[in-house]
Amino acid sequence: MAGCREVIMQSFSCRVTYPKASYSSISHNTIRSVGEEILFESFPYRVNGTNSSSMYSEDARVLDAYDDEYNGVIVHSEGLPSNPTSFASILRSSLSHWKAKGKKGVWLKLPITKSEFVPIAVKEGFQYHHAESEYVMMTYWIPEEPCLLPSNASHQVGVGSFVINEKNEVLVVQEKYSPTGLAGLWKIPTGFILESEEIFTGAVREVKEETGVDSEFVEVIAFRHAHNVAFEKSDLFFICMLRSLSTQIMVDDQEIQAAKWMPLVEFVKQPLIQEDTMFKKITDICIARMGKRYCGLAVHQLASKFDGRLSSLYFNIVEDANSTCQAS
Amino acid sequence: MAGCREVIMQSFSCRVTYPKASYSSISHNTIRSVGEEILFESFPYRVNGTNSSSMYSEDARVLDAYDDEYNGVIVHSEGLPSNPTSFASILRSSLSHWKAKGKKGVWLKLPITKSEFVPIAVKEGFQYHHAESEYVMMTYWIPEEPCLLPSNASHQVGVGSFVINEKNEVLVVQEKYSPTGLAGLWKIPTGFILESEEIFTGAVREVKEETGVDSEFVEVIAFRHAHNVAFEKSDLFFICMLRSLSTQIMVDDQEIQAAKWMPLVEFVKQPLIQEDTMFKKITDICIARMGKRYCGLAVHQLASKFDGRLSSLYFNIVEDANSTCQAS
Repeated sequence: MAGCREVIMQSFSCRVTYPKASYSSISHNTIRSVGEEILFESFPYRVNGTNSSSMYSEDARVLDAYDDEYNGVIVHSEGLPSNPTSFASILRSSLSHWKAKGKKGVWLKLPITKSEFVPIAVKEGFQYHHAESEYVMMTYWIPEEPCLLPSNASHQVGVGSFVINEKNEVLVVQEKYSPTGLAGLWKIPTGFILESEEIFTGAVREVKEETGVDSEFVEVIAFRHAHNVAFEKSDLFFICMLRSLSTQIMVDDQEIQAAKWMPLVEFVKQPLIQEDTMFKKITDICIARMGKRYCGLAVHQLASKFDGRLSSLYFNIVEDANSTCQAS
Repeated sequence: MAGCREVIMQSFSCRVTYPKASYSSISHNTIRSVGEEILFESFPYRVNGTNSSSMYSEDARVLDAYDDEYNGVIVHSEGLPSNPTSFASILRSSLSHWKAKGKKGVWLKLPITKSEFVPIAVKEGFQYHHAESEYVMMTYWIPEEPCLLPSNASHQVGVGSFVINEKNEVLVVQEKYSPTGLAGLWKIPTGFILESEEIFTGAVREVKEETGVDSEFVEVIAFRHAHNVAFEKSDLFFICMLRSLSTQIMVDDQEIQAAKWMPLVEFVKQPLIQEDTMFKKITDICIARMGKRYCGLAVHQLASKFDGRLSSLYFNIVEDANSTCQAS
């Protein structure tokens, strides 16, 4: 797809090159040794900043940056000048320099401490790409051809934990903030996974945080994909089966009104479960899984030499040749 | 978890309230009718902007905003003043107003055309939350207690399509941009899903775009979870089994070097597949699925009355009571 640069190193997936970009020849240390740089003698410029870092020299005419693998450049945040006037001037000369070198995409990460540089970059034609609390990433696409810069993160990921004990009781909670009409429903613990957190650890953590119960991950038994959930982003929600390792309940007062072990039959009987197609289906799956009449996806940590990365692969058990799969 | 406000309406998942927030009493139309607003007579202020919208009056002392369900406020981007001085003054008086009213989180969406307001908001204590090409969303957490604002999207989602024809041939591609050493590998078509796109439609689209082949989605047979892939974000990659509906190949020159139908045995024999744990495992699963010795997750569109949303639930078939699941 346009906007997606596929790299086999990423095994099956797509990635941008930010983490692996290599240094280019345009840092100030080499700038004078590159013949074509003479072109930029026409931009007499001195940085009068106070925080010139080791990567940034007094007579640099181009922002300190390094190349990515797609003929783009990534600006060093540490090498930014200290005042807006300096930034405006050097950003302009840098863009001319990169255009002359046939560069394509420019990545400019502005820390929140440099927020006054944002309107300057916008004036030069930069767009926002994404932001985290402490920075905004801005991009500039140089060529005439359609922009091929990779897109921003598109999904939030949640987990729901179906925890069963030996007495066939389900661990359920009532939340503090339930819309009226749904108050009183006993539901499974749910929550977002944290940054860089595994689904299987997030499911266990949420249970511990909300109810104080220790548990171990068994399988992802289903997942739900919904769109335009928050800020037009999409939502992937993984329903996990967990085994309880402790029984005592300690409620998290901040989010949870009450928590308890509820006999499975009672849980299923709840009108709000019975009347909802999705809730009902997920409950049926959990019951089938408990009766060993259902296979979910177990997790396996595997390394791939393509990206040297240890990642989690979730898959069903491959049954032996004698057993048959009902799937068409 | 902190940062996650769980709402049963969202069925099993978490969401922020942006899409469903209701109007508050602090818009300029009602400001004078609210007794406590007299407090803000101490902020004499006139908007001398040129683009005062219908939601913004000449004597407004508080930014036009509406409440969310968690005692937060969401500022109307359309109601922003036109010049930075006006914005600085009204933002300060608005924050005092919201603090006095016991508000918690403030959401301020600044379009790129108002980028000069960004440093002003930062000076007042706002942080970045997220950004898309045309705007940056900023947030301010008023109370002393820890910030409970929901977090930004954390994942990119990719799909890989394992397309099989009646002759047990796999649809494979060679990409234009392969790192040296991996050039020559014949791999399955992969790519990111588009904004608000379903996994099952994204898998079919990628195949069509890269190879010109029509196909239909069968199942998600496995998924991979990796972290710190792009901009410290995580990556969810869904491996899908598809059935071919056409055979003729038309290569997408932009990304793809070559595409062809390759006998399954040849595909598996490739050293780069054999030598890689993950690639090998996924290939084994695909072969088991073809032999009906594996059940993946089929997709079902289900509505949930909790959010009135039609969403996609991916789950395995629930086998009959006679068949047994090998999962422990």
